[in-house]
Amino acid sequence: MLLYVKTIINRKKMKNLKINSFITKGPIPGSKKTYVNGKIHNIKVAMRQIDLSQTTGKNGIIENNSPVLVYDTSGPYTDPVAEIDVNKGLNPIRKQWILKRGDVEEQKTLNSLFSKERLSNKDLDNVRFKYINKKPLKAVKNHHVTQLYYARKGIITPEMEYVAIRENQLMEEHSKEHAAGSLDSTYITPEFVRQEIAAGRAIIPANINHPESEPMIIGQKFLVKINANIGNSPTTSSIPEEVEKAVWAFRWGADTIMDLSTGVNIHEIREWILRNSPVPVGTVPLYQALEKVNGKVEDLSWEVYKDTLIEQAEQGVDFFTIHAGLLMKHIPLTIKRKTGIVSRGGSIMAKWCLLHHKESFLYTHFDEICDILATYDIGVSLGDGLRPGSIADANDKAQFAELNVLGELTKIAWDKNVQVMIEGPGHVPVNKIKENMDLQRSVCMEAPFYTLGPLTTDIAPGYDHITSAIGGAMIAWYGAAILCYVTPKEHLGLPNKEDVKTGVITYKLAAHAADLAKGHPGAQIRDDAMSKARFEFRWKDQFHLALDPECALKFHDETLPDEGSKYSHFCSMCGEHYCAMKTTHYVKEYSEKLEEKSKEFKKAGGEIYIKS
Amino acid sequence: MLLYVKTIINRKKMKNLKINSFITKGPIPGSKKTYVNGKIHNIKVAMRQIDLSQTTGKNGIIENNSPVLVYDTSGPYTDPVAEIDVNKGLNPIRKQWILKRGDVEEQKTLNSLFSKERLSNKDLDNVRFKYINKKPLKAVKNHHVTQLYYARKGIITPEMEYVAIRENQLMEEHSKEHAAGSLDSTYITPEFVRQEIAAGRAIIPANINHPESEPMIIGQKFLVKINANIGNSPTTSSIPEEVEKAVWAFRWGADTIMDLSTGVNIHEIREWILRNSPVPVGTVPLYQALEKVNGKVEDLSWEVYKDTLIEQAEQGVDFFTIHAGLLMKHIPLTIKRKTGIVSRGGSIMAKWCLLHHKESFLYTHFDEICDILATYDIGVSLGDGLRPGSIADANDKAQFAELNVLGELTKIAWDKNVQVMIEGPGHVPVNKIKENMDLQRSVCMEAPFYTLGPLTTDIAPGYDHITSAIGGAMIAWYGAAILCYVTPKEHLGLPNKEDVKTGVITYKLAAHAADLAKGHPGAQIRDDAMSKARFEFRWKDQFHLALDPECALKFHDETLPDEGSKYSHFCSMCGEHYCAMKTTHYVKEYSEKLEEKSKEFKKAGGEIYIKS
Repeated sequence: MLLYVKTIINRKKMKNLKINSFITKGPIPGSKKTYVNGKIHNIKVAMRQIDLSQTTGKNGIIENNSPVLVYDTSGPYTDPVAEIDVNKGLNPIRKQWILKRGDVEEQKTLNSLFSKERLSNKDLDNVRFKYINKKPLKAVKNHHVTQLYYARKGIITPEMEYVAIRENQLMEEHSKEHAAGSLDSTYITPEFVRQEIAAGRAIIPANINHPESEPMIIGQKFLVKINANIGNSPTTSSIPEEVEKAVWAFRWGADTIMDLSTGVNIHEIREWILRNSPVPVGTVPLYQALEKVNGKVEDLSWEVYKDTLIEQAEQGVDFFTIHAGLLMKHIPLTIKRKTGIVSRGGSIMAKWCLLHHKESFLYTHFDEICDILATYDIGVSLGDGLRPGSIADANDKAQFAELNVLGELTKIAWDKNVQVMIEGPGHVPVNKIKENMDLQRSVCMEAPFYTLGPLTTDIAPGYDHITSAIGGAMIAWYGAAILCYVTPKEHLGLPNKEDVKTGVITYKLAAHAADLAKGHPGAQIRDDAMSKARFEFRWKDQFHLALDPECALKFHDETLPDEGSKYSHFCSMCGEHYCAMKTTHYVKEYSEKLEEKSKEFKKAGGEIYIKS
Repeated sequence: MLLYVKTIINRKKMKNLKINSFITKGPIPGSKKTYVNGKIHNIKVAMRQIDLSQTTGKNGIIENNSPVLVYDTSGPYTDPVAEIDVNKGLNPIRKQWILKRGDVEEQKTLNSLFSKERLSNKDLDNVRFKYINKKPLKAVKNHHVTQLYYARKGIITPEMEYVAIRENQLMEEHSKEHAAGSLDSTYITPEFVRQEIAAGRAIIPANINHPESEPMIIGQKFLVKINANIGNSPTTSSIPEEVEKAVWAFRWGADTIMDLSTGVNIHEIREWILRNSPVPVGTVPLYQALEKVNGKVEDLSWEVYKDTLIEQAEQGVDFFTIHAGLLMKHIPLTIKRKTGIVSRGGSIMAKWCLLHHKESFLYTHFDEICDILATYDIGVSLGDGLRPGSIADANDKAQFAELNVLGELTKIAWDKNVQVMIEGPGHVPVNKIKENMDLQRSVCMEAPFYTLGPLTTDIAPGYDHITSAIGGAMIAWYGAAILCYVTPKEHLGLPNKEDVKTGVITYKLAAHAADLAKGHPGAQIRDDAMSKARFEFRWKDQFHLALDPECALKFHDETLPDEGSKYSHFCSMCGEHYCAMKTTHYVKEYSEKLEEKSKEFKKAGGEIYIKS
């Protein structure tokens, strides 16, 4: 067996692995962990608090600045009191919530043949996560255990309350200042969350076998989320590197991750990642299915694929990308394209269809797939196998023909209470982005849109995190709910750790730009705090409020490294005499005085001093 | 005199300066210099040609790929046969064009008192550009020598033909493939250029004392341009570094540069930069005027400012940023802002107004300013002293009140045949960008819009090249003609050479995304060539077609450095078995065969094989 041989090769590397030493822990500079308790359920919601220094003037302290609470994806890793042991995995915070619902049962054994085989393979002992759950949960027969099912029943789950608190956290501390007036009406309540999920407009990916995950919501009316792809590829990377890449991605803001590993030991890598992931984890099960048939597309079958779904369901994968919308009739539409089919899953299924002269088994077995997903609460992310891979191919017949099928599949999934999101492009010029969003919204009945960028030009390899952040910010403003990040290595190679960070921060800023544009309640609080800190030359507060405090500090210190410069009223960009903000302070003081004088003057019957 | 003292300090540093060793020369990897001759005038227009390799298949060569011509801002520095000596400056290619018009006269002496003083100062001998032009050109009395004046007279100048050829170059080689049908109607002719300039919708910044510059055009109907700010600040940098920063910026694609130096020897730095700049150079004369009065805003006067205009006009500055629209009545509108006035020029003038209880001399003397500008053909870039410096302040009363005044000033400048562009923001959330463009277009009667980003969030210092590229791409799509770049160091410090490159490439891709979205004729040729190279695994062609070939190659080679991988049908991102493009080649071949069979079948009276 090919996989077995590959495993042997990697064994030595993993022996005596001190994986904890690879992992980045501790708070982000200037931030501390805090928790907010639920009101309906016994839950505590993790948040990150940025404390700010006081505003001072000539005569001392003028004002205290409220701390800013920010959405926190980093999990227990940034909590100094949390005990982190990657070998044991994270605390399963959702375990009791799930059991309490009384609609799941422990399996007596693993149901996937492949999982059993891997578990019994002694050669994998050194690679394997030690405390593997051999009795995974599954819905009681004829039950659906999805958040969509509960929402439709009118039940507010702990998961729903968790995300409601989480989405509002930006406003908690600032409620007095900001919540007056219209804001209350848009305040996100657990009931609002339930309604959005019930309507299919939002999803909480939350496999019952991934109790370690902190619930998060994906939907147009919530904060825009970002996904980071990690995973090795046959040419590079190893398990500890991949786990650290995941922890690193959470740290900087990944709301979900997808493990796209295609090389050796992907079953084991996934277990390590899931047990240590506080965010939902997605996969493309087709990749592993292909691995199981030694890369021979013709040998793929529904049976192999189905066992892979169960294998990953029992491990705890929260959402699956399934390219079920690519049909045989679409293939001829791709022939004249500049870049054909650029989705891995899409190209594999197209090849399979041609080799077998049959419609895709993902399409013909979609009902059965949904039955499986509903018994674990795995979200389906309907893959866009025909997304454009170049500006020339954007918004073409192939792409939109597949989108129509995704709309049909959305209905089938919803009928089975499966939570759905829809994947989108790709490469799209700026002027054609809105059409994608509008069409998806109508064809897929407002199911959340999950896009890859889109990249707005083809000519900037090495900078495709930027070409795609442009498209990402725009499509999220138009309504996309979650953006799949693109790293600087796109089109060129596998991203390393630094690339992952660059990709995550870039997408965080794009998502945030969209949150501001959509007027998400509370989104601007952090911007306002930053601007105030800027205007008052509170440099350390500026660094701490930044999406990447380490980078901001480093860049500042390149030219003005001394401690005194952290308090000075200028930076090296303009220097002391040309700092506009410094000058403006004078202008502000002076013209405030003038205005006062003017008022006195007016009171006394004279004319206004400053023309207006 | 303060300046004098500063000069002494810097003298030693400049002695025996081998400035040429600082300068980056030679072609960009994979590109070569080429020239296209004019048809009306005796001109040759520089272009960059990217030669591509052949497409090969199983049976050898399938197809030759036409070279791609790209817009080239790099000047003679990338021409291996050009003799580059920074001490002597570039070849004054426009000299004869200017003299031939017969409307200028050589001055007997420098007209600026300050320039004379600097020239006679022996302590500056080692800092000074050696071949300084002591007899600058000026319009014959009562004549205007601007491109706007000529355009209105119906004259097509060599500058106009130059830019027409330059803007079309993308299409030259591909004319057969692409020019069929509708394209001819949008083909940019010299007459079209003239009309756009005559209407005030476009400008060619081209001071008669900067004959070294290669003409370029700024206008909504042309390729989107980018500006790079360079210049030292009092805290760092030196002359050779600044000249190299400029050459470096041209190399990667800066269409114009602004020298924003505010430290010592700014007169001399400017001379070095101008004599070695193939692109138009802009300044903010107010900075130097303030330097002349030792940083004391209260000592600024129209007289000092006027002499500065003449000083810089005679050196050859191509456009001036003038913050003439900021009036006293606007100042109270800024008091409640989060970040007050963030424009250096704006804050200086606001302070001056308050100190003198007078309207800004830039406003009251605007007529006279235009008289000066028209005699050298210096464009005026009407500064937005009240641009928002934070999301909170975007699109506020202060900003738009000033914009209205800029509209009035546009009319005055146009009456004097002065070419005008309008500066725009700043910090603007995504949903408020379009309003800026629409308002500017209407208030300023379609004069080109020159924006600084805008930045779409405040919370990403260290990544503001990206927060602003999002806004930049959008506003350029909406109609902005030129984008001022923002580097990663924005808000943190003075950019270094690497930051300049990152800023330039980032803005190049944003501008290009807008060109694609606007449907600029020929803009997509490079994207299509890249996509074809991608699909055919021509890796070297991909690197060469990239905006930053060095970075693309470096990133690829991080994981697959060997020469063989430059020809392999995969990269380390997905690996060999999971490369969608590789699989797609199979799909393509196979389904082409199928389609043929299907046709035969149909011919023979059967049904179509593939459902459609």
